[in-house]
Amino acid sequence: MISKAIIKDIQNLGLKKVRDEQGLFVAEGVKWMEELVRFAPERIRCIYALAPWIEANRSALKSIAVVEVDEILLARLSQLQTPNQAIAVVHQFLHEPQPVESGLTLILDTIQDPGNLGTLIRTADWFGVTQIICSPDSVDAYNPKVVQASMGSLVRVPVSQTSLFEWLHAQSEVPKWAAVLAGKNYSEIKPNGVGVLMMGNESKGLSKELLDMATDHVTIPRRGGAESLNVAVATGILLSSLCR
Amino acid sequence: MISKAIIKDIQNLGLKKVRDEQGLFVAEGVKWMEELVRFAPERIRCIYALAPWIEANRSALKSIAVVEVDEILLARLSQLQTPNQAIAVVHQFLHEPQPVESGLTLILDTIQDPGNLGTLIRTADWFGVTQIICSPDSVDAYNPKVVQASMGSLVRVPVSQTSLFEWLHAQSEVPKWAAVLAGKNYSEIKPNGVGVLMMGNESKGLSKELLDMATDHVTIPRRGGAESLNVAVATGILLSSLCR
Repeated sequence: MISKAIIKDIQNLGLKKVRDEQGLFVAEGVKWMEELVRFAPERIRCIYALAPWIEANRSALKSIAVVEVDEILLARLSQLQTPNQAIAVVHQFLHEPQPVESGLTLILDTIQDPGNLGTLIRTADWFGVTQIICSPDSVDAYNPKVVQASMGSLVRVPVSQTSLFEWLHAQSEVPKWAAVLAGKNYSEIKPNGVGVLMMGNESKGLSKELLDMATDHVTIPRRGGAESLNVAVATGILLSSLCR
Repeated sequence: MISKAIIKDIQNLGLKKVRDEQGLFVAEGVKWMEELVRFAPERIRCIYALAPWIEANRSALKSIAVVEVDEILLARLSQLQTPNQAIAVVHQFLHEPQPVESGLTLILDTIQDPGNLGTLIRTADWFGVTQIICSPDSVDAYNPKVVQASMGSLVRVPVSQTSLFEWLHAQSEVPKWAAVLAGKNYSEIKPNGVGVLMMGNESKGLSKELLDMATDHVTIPRRGGAESLNVAVATGILLSSLCR
């Protein structure tokens, strides 16, 4: 059994203020548990799970705190409409922005939709992006909807927040590709495996001060009528090209 | 003023059963209104909007039924947390699947997340896809979350539902590229502007019977750790390559 106070503490991790104070977040579902147990067991504070899941994973859970809960309690702890067997309280990863020495860095200016940020993290993970750096006014990477949409990729891709202007200013020698609606065709980029891809806010794009710091303004040519692409879709297209 | 019965009728269009019976759907927000007024004014049954929006758009609204509402009433009609000035009741587009004669057709097997389907429609619109054909068990294209995520592209891209197996069977002469996790590198495709891109369910991928009908199994190479890409991101990457 877990006390009402603990239930309340876990529910309160839905609030950014509480997450920031405590340096914790909540991850849910079987897929996330697999990623945590495999890649970051030391970050797990506690897993709350149904008996069959605990039984099936007993050998992998040796040094991890696990509390058995029933479906009613799991539903109370969960932020999902359909809770999926297990939920974990996890220590945040606390990454710092790193200078670009190799690989691709993705910088995100004022991404506001949590589903988009989660999908961006998952997409960056697929393409082996070295780090993601978000502007300070972006949605919190530990927001439950970001965590869910990242499908566990938050375990692998370092995500940090800082002033993008200052960070970019310090990276003088690398290509910086800014995604815009009217630049040169992205397929003309000749990537050499190192650089910074800069993506902007869902409706406003990149701020002018960041655009001015780019070495290239790149565009995915439009063939039809949509005014824009979803930011995660556009990022996937550009990363796939930069990784060819 | 509009009656309680009309308010209830509009709210009920949130339900698929009611949408199907009446052949109507609800579109919301300034961007959607622009698309409707410009590209499909004959489909609009009625726009409900705030006075400033009506005033600003008066010249474009000549032959369209428009009812002025206040913010309280707009909030009651809206399915959004932050209603955006106007909402329209619209006749569904009633497209039928067409044979492939030119351009790209996107077929979608059992897409279940409405945000994904909306983003797929928007992405298909950007790349000038000729039509989207969904399996009968896909999420309804007129689901409010699909409509919202499509950002108005539902006006331009014909979306229909049918048995994909039967439809594919009738398209004998065109390339059919099936997205899979272990196929040939998509960058090896030599597109000639005509063909069918086949995308599968978010967790299960394409069904075996559809995979067997493909001419090519194609894959976006993975560089990092994510188990899969979001279906809309993957579709964007493949369409961008097919449109080069």
